[in-house]
Amino acid sequence: MERTEFGPRALTMSDPPQAPELDVTQWFNVSGPLSLAGLRGRVVVLHAFQMLCPGCIQRGVPQAQRIANLFSLDHVSVIGIHTVFEHHAAMTPVSLAAFIHEFNVTFPIGVDRPGTDGPVPQTMTAYGMRGTPTLALIDRNGRLRKVALGAEDDLQVGADIATLLAQP
Amino acid sequence: MERTEFGPRALTMSDPPQAPELDVTQWFNVSGPLSLAGLRGRVVVLHAFQMLCPGCIQRGVPQAQRIANLFSLDHVSVIGIHTVFEHHAAMTPVSLAAFIHEFNVTFPIGVDRPGTDGPVPQTMTAYGMRGTPTLALIDRNGRLRKVALGAEDDLQVGADIATLLAQP
Amino acid sequence: MERTEFGPRALTMSDPPQAPELDVTQWFNVSGPLSLAGLRGRVVVLHAFQMLCPGCIQRGVPQAQRIANLFSLDHVSVIGIHTVFEHHAAMTPVSLAAFIHEFNVTFPIGVDRPGTDGPVPQTMTAYGMRGTPTLALIDRNGRLRKVALGAEDDLQVGADIATLLAQP
Amino acid sequence: MERTEFGPRALTMSDPPQAPELDVTQWFNVSGPLSLAGLRGRVVVLHAFQMLCPGCIQRGVPQAQRIANLFSLDHVSVIGIHTVFEHHAAMTPVSLAAFIHEFNVTFPIGVDRPGTDGPVPQTMTAYGMRGTPTLALIDRNGRLRKVALGAEDDLQVGADIATLLAQP
Repeated sequence: MERTEFGPRALTMSDPPQAPELDVTQWFNVSGPLSLAGLRGRVVVLHAFQMLCPGCIQRGVPQAQRIANLFSLDHVSVIGIHTVFEHHAAMTPVSLAAFIHEFNVTFPIGVDRPGTDGPVPQTMTAYGMRGTPTLALIDRNGRLRKVALGAEDDLQVGADIATLLAQP
Repeated sequence: MERTEFGPRALTMSDPPQAPELDVTQWFNVSGPLSLAGLRGRVVVLHAFQMLCPGCIQRGVPQAQRIANLFSLDHVSVIGIHTVFEHHAAMTPVSLAAFIHEFNVTFPIGVDRPGTDGPVPQTMTAYGMRGTPTLALIDRNGRLRKVALGAEDDLQVGADIATLLAQP
Repeated sequence: MERTEFGPRALTMSDPPQAPELDVTQWFNVSGPLSLAGLRGRVVVLHAFQMLCPGCIQRGVPQAQRIANLFSLDHVSVIGIHTVFEHHAAMTPVSLAAFIHEFNVTFPIGVDRPGTDGPVPQTMTAYGMRGTPTLALIDRNGRLRKVALGAEDDLQVGADIATLLAQP
Repeated sequence: MERTEFGPRALTMSDPPQAPELDVTQWFNVSGPLSLAGLRGRVVVLHAFQMLCPGCIQRGVPQAQRIANLFSLDHVSVIGIHTVFEHHAAMTPVSLAAFIHEFNVTFPIGVDRPGTDGPVPQTMTAYGMRGTPTLALIDRNGRLRKVALGAEDDLQVGADIATLLAQP
């Protein structure tokens, strides 16, 4: 296993691209629309999930909630994005609203805009995400520093976020 | 805590009532409709759940699947019943089908028939169930021996089922 | 996987041998010595462990404690037996006493008598146990019905015990 | 709950004291004695434990091992210290050696020097530790930045270590 920087699945340190803007049709748990542009200066933790994906329910969403609980909102913004790419009729915003309520999810969640020529939604395509759950980390300058498919260990994620927080 | 027979939440041993027949609008994971009458001679494990209930997803459904995996189909029939009493628009049969697929549930599941004057469906009402998950145990003679709200310990459930199996 | 009777690792149902008597040098958690002969009429759950065996600490001992908590002492007797077959100097009765205290083990535990020509102690040899944890189940008539190496699922163990309880 | 800096149990950021030197009678998993002085330039994660403390076995030691596995040895040094303050006869170095072997612990472990006038050993006293497990974090300059009793969440520990790594 490759070990770069501080861990096996390291942050991108040189020449990271700007993170694509979110393309969202509906927001939950927030009074108005969010944008990465508006969050510049904070570290953004983007958690892409589907409400009926077992790995998301069992590991990804609880981890995102733990991150939201631990770090100060002034420095870290956790955003869920509901990237439905299968079972579209089963995971509508109506179902998502019930899911959010039943699982006590408190961080903002946006519904990824449906794709125009295929099942994969727009933001998911823009980030090149290959499935769910996927964790994306964006630094204070809006650059995309990590896109990790599957559940990351808390130790790694905590270290990644703090590494980004320590950068100006 | 009361301790009767072999455990704190014991089977009903004297004068158990006949279990109400299932009232189901649609079946999954089985070629035709099931009825308790048709399963006479087997022990029936009835698992009432809602697909967006956290305790069901995390504990109840996995336990029902373990029971289905462990005991012989010739002796024990595990049946899920989707007793939606809240968030009805979020937990339709279309969403349930995706849930069953994604979580690899293999035992038969019936959709409880909607109530005529309230949110609680028919079978749930007939059994007097007060929430989800609820486990109901029915003996070889079709009598209702236990209705337990919340997740039971595996040790208790295994003992309960074997106790019923040992009865003629 | 073989599926006999009610599960993949079934009880021995025909011609089970008498369980060898316990050969113990010291008892904990009980006022006087125990013997299988003195427990005739009860189901005996024998849990063979070593205090520094990870599978014992993490799964076997907690399961034995759950069994002791669930079933009535009038019907089921849980007995731990400390079958040290390696690291003998590290797992003396003095260390075992601290272990029992720190992990809040409440069921009786006997120290298996050291072997005369090898590292394996006497009771462990008599039962043909091949490692730890091992669970042995003895019926009301003192017959050995199961010897299972490794942690059994609670569902299976609960069913096994109840099956034995239902036999006269 | 107090939330300072990035989490509820924050690192000490101003005027941290120099970490007391380790006082160890015997080392495991390392060819020669270690000292904080010799590790200057690295972040040191000091994990104080007792081998028969349930919280240590179940949470503390596995977490320390995960830290050792994740971070590069060039930057982070994980050191266990066996701070026996109770059941001294039960947790001798002989027993500790078997524990280390059975639980596959690979990071260096030192045996804390017994106290001269009481049950608490020397290093434990010097750090003001009040029990086990305790996690202490020491920065690249040898200053003590955190002493936390009980198991910390991985997310918090990962963030703490990375915060220290980012400091010169």
